[in-house]
Amino acid sequence: MYGSSYTTQASTSYAPSRGFASSSKAGAGEYVPVLTTKTINPHVLEAEYAVRGEISNRANKYASQLANGEKLPFDSVVTANIGNPQQMPYLAQKPLTFWRQVAALTEYPELMDQPGISKLFPKDTQERAKLLLGDIGSVGAYSHSKGAAIVRRHVAEFIEERDGYPSDPELIYLTTGASGGVQLLLQVMIAGPETGVMIPIPQYPLYSAALALYNAQPVRYDLNPFDDWSLDVNAMSKSIDEARSQGTDVRACAVINPGNPTGQCLSYENIQDLIRMAYNKRVVLLADEVYQANIYMPDRRPFHSFKKVLRDFAKSENADERIIADKVELVSFHSISKGVSGECGRRGGYFELTNMDADVEAQIYKLASISLCPSLQGQIGVDMLVKPPKQGDESYELYAKETSGIHATLQERSEKMAKKFGALEGVDVEPAQGALYLFPRVTLPPKAHEEAKKRGKKVDEFYCLEMLDATGICVVPGSGFGKMPEEDTGACFFRTTVLAKETDEFVERYGKFHTDFLKKYA
Amino acid sequence: MYGSSYTTQASTSYAPSRGFASSSKAGAGEYVPVLTTKTINPHVLEAEYAVRGEISNRANKYASQLANGEKLPFDSVVTANIGNPQQMPYLAQKPLTFWRQVAALTEYPELMDQPGISKLFPKDTQERAKLLLGDIGSVGAYSHSKGAAIVRRHVAEFIEERDGYPSDPELIYLTTGASGGVQLLLQVMIAGPETGVMIPIPQYPLYSAALALYNAQPVRYDLNPFDDWSLDVNAMSKSIDEARSQGTDVRACAVINPGNPTGQCLSYENIQDLIRMAYNKRVVLLADEVYQANIYMPDRRPFHSFKKVLRDFAKSENADERIIADKVELVSFHSISKGVSGECGRRGGYFELTNMDADVEAQIYKLASISLCPSLQGQIGVDMLVKPPKQGDESYELYAKETSGIHATLQERSEKMAKKFGALEGVDVEPAQGALYLFPRVTLPPKAHEEAKKRGKKVDEFYCLEMLDATGICVVPGSGFGKMPEEDTGACFFRTTVLAKETDEFVERYGKFHTDFLKKYA
Repeated sequence: MYGSSYTTQASTSYAPSRGFASSSKAGAGEYVPVLTTKTINPHVLEAEYAVRGEISNRANKYASQLANGEKLPFDSVVTANIGNPQQMPYLAQKPLTFWRQVAALTEYPELMDQPGISKLFPKDTQERAKLLLGDIGSVGAYSHSKGAAIVRRHVAEFIEERDGYPSDPELIYLTTGASGGVQLLLQVMIAGPETGVMIPIPQYPLYSAALALYNAQPVRYDLNPFDDWSLDVNAMSKSIDEARSQGTDVRACAVINPGNPTGQCLSYENIQDLIRMAYNKRVVLLADEVYQANIYMPDRRPFHSFKKVLRDFAKSENADERIIADKVELVSFHSISKGVSGECGRRGGYFELTNMDADVEAQIYKLASISLCPSLQGQIGVDMLVKPPKQGDESYELYAKETSGIHATLQERSEKMAKKFGALEGVDVEPAQGALYLFPRVTLPPKAHEEAKKRGKKVDEFYCLEMLDATGICVVPGSGFGKMPEEDTGACFFRTTVLAKETDEFVERYGKFHTDFLKKYA
Repeated sequence: MYGSSYTTQASTSYAPSRGFASSSKAGAGEYVPVLTTKTINPHVLEAEYAVRGEISNRANKYASQLANGEKLPFDSVVTANIGNPQQMPYLAQKPLTFWRQVAALTEYPELMDQPGISKLFPKDTQERAKLLLGDIGSVGAYSHSKGAAIVRRHVAEFIEERDGYPSDPELIYLTTGASGGVQLLLQVMIAGPETGVMIPIPQYPLYSAALALYNAQPVRYDLNPFDDWSLDVNAMSKSIDEARSQGTDVRACAVINPGNPTGQCLSYENIQDLIRMAYNKRVVLLADEVYQANIYMPDRRPFHSFKKVLRDFAKSENADERIIADKVELVSFHSISKGVSGECGRRGGYFELTNMDADVEAQIYKLASISLCPSLQGQIGVDMLVKPPKQGDESYELYAKETSGIHATLQERSEKMAKKFGALEGVDVEPAQGALYLFPRVTLPPKAHEEAKKRGKKVDEFYCLEMLDATGICVVPGSGFGKMPEEDTGACFFRTTVLAKETDEFVERYGKFHTDFLKKYA
């Protein structure tokens, strides 16, 4: 002890009890764990996350068995359950060279001092690495809790260029993928068990899981499988009224556009109507726009950002509507995990706050700061996403070739799979307008329903488990997205990604299974 | 629409309401935001995180002003508020070369195909990169939600070597820093507002913030500043009884060892007693051991892992005590952010579960899977941490030189700062046994207390704000760690990191401020 003001004190002596008190919950000699499924957070128990549930665990088991040389009815597991484009060996989308070169230089900047380095790293990759490191310092240092200032500036520039409206870097938060942002925002806005948040059916199960965890009420709204999975805003308004009349404080509405698992791209007018509804009914909009770069019908169904459609209200001819542009509270999410980069493993994304109360914004900032900051390579990924090489840059040509190649491949696979799936008996499928999935509707014979019931499974779970056992293809049952088998027709759904490298072989494997399945339960 | 089974249906037509219903909460024409501090999650409002609070925000403002060329009473801001070793320009601990070389190769594996690459990248860095990529595939792909299998195996080997007891990779979870792990575990174990978790005073504010967020009861136990900040296990037992008698369901106890902010290393016997207490009182132990490699008095105060001390009970001569080894539920946390790597920006860490109920473990896994996986570069950082170069490896010599250099520097700074701080009037300070901080105790004159009161500040906040305004040094008041100014003496505390590169200048800046402050309020 250095210093002068302390008076030395003896520490309080203690004689720890060394006896074994029998716990109030356990008999003598018996020790019941403190944490059991009876004692832990019941909301954790309630949360479901089908993308990585029973089927996914069984697929992992099969993959291990194959790796150990065991014989199974198939020689590879196809993880079509999760949008993980770079997963080896069956998906294996190649990373974008520009991204990885910049990442490598930021990891090990000494490379830039090596003679001849410009043969390995184009000039613009070195410039970008220096620009980023000039602000960040080191990828091993915490950044600002909102994310590095330079990346947030670039995000704001990207949004301004996309939408034609100003964007403030101070209202942009870099996140651990979009999931991290969605969870943070829900945590802020859920005030208690009476809070309601609207989610689409079918939906990405992050939303239902987070609502279960934070103990809020999901208020479901249906996407229409018979009309491009569109939203029925009128029906949504009614749902809000109904939920409110039953005491649920509906305060937000999550919209996934382009849709997951459904692949729809909302029309400009549909988004306008949603925004009007948000204003009239006073709900915050959560716009999950992580698939904004995965657009397959750009003429018929281009991507419209909620931010742009919202700000466009300022130009409305209806004076009453102009006010909407500055009122409706909107959080827009984006991610590096999808698009053509598919860099999920970096865990990068951002959200932008629009029309958010400044005091609430301060609370969002505080909450973000408790987790310190998102990973720096995730942040650098966001920089690559929003500020790709420009024409004239040394990397441009290769970048353009790689990205257009990936885009064309995804589009081709998506179309081919939709066509071939749709040609199978009992399978209907909407071709994707966007995103990375198909969501086929499957009509199965009554005997299959009976067999599912016998095994204590939903019919879509049964079908997907059988598919996995027979083919090694892992997909997610529609019920995992909240889309239950139809009551009248019994038809059910499943989600598959369109990422499998060997599309023809994939379709064939699936087709054979499906045909055999129909025969078996005819 | 491809397929046959659909019958075309007209979508339900809708006519969205375009009128402007005046909200129930707002008058006509007035639009009150849905989210305000009156409507959001009240637990978010309650959470405090002093490490990045008012003082830190003011420091950020000063740094911007200096960057813009404005004149201030100092020419640099010293961010001694947060353990961010690589932060530029004032801390600037150099990253370990081995880490960054492996990271760069995993980002851009094509480098390994370049002729002459072995001049830039030692053979063992290439081998490690290939080993990791052989399991991971790509750093852009999601891994298993627990983290990549290969890294978890290496963690288990590290723990086995450290403790001399088996470790199961399936009970190891890679996390987004230790913070991510702590938050996940607390979320699982907090069942409702009656749940109590013991936290030390002073404590790292992540714990109090997370307990506020998840709406649980902090049950405080004091570390004794007059006895090496030791734990009084007897007093802790009494606190548990007292809290339970008042209806709090105390079920876990967080211990930070080595301590933050206090720097103490618990003795083997102190840890034994804590484990006995955990058994007798039935509480889960949360052992935050992120500073286990920052040990400054290895002879007098070596690091003992809770896992080892727990398993050692199996060898007890007391038959009744042997059972403890397999009963007490323990979660041990580690991180890449501290130690000598200081790679906070990668966001990597892990926790190990010991004696955890298997069904609870399944719930932990499910919860981890909702966030998909920690960043791959964070996971690779964990691999570097637990499996450094060995003697004989090409990188070994440089690695040993860099790590021993950083360790010696930290130790030297810590000792120098403690000595010089302790020599100032009214300042007492315990030399750190471990971690990256000092936690000086400051006795201030009555006039300073009066001035603080006048400004509506706690005296330690006032002192730290004055320090920042005068010197640009940003530290955290003791009250931010729950350590309030002493009621009898009025003495207060602050935490400073020992990371400032220019230690002499740092100490001088601070010393001048302190002396002037005492004079001003004499």
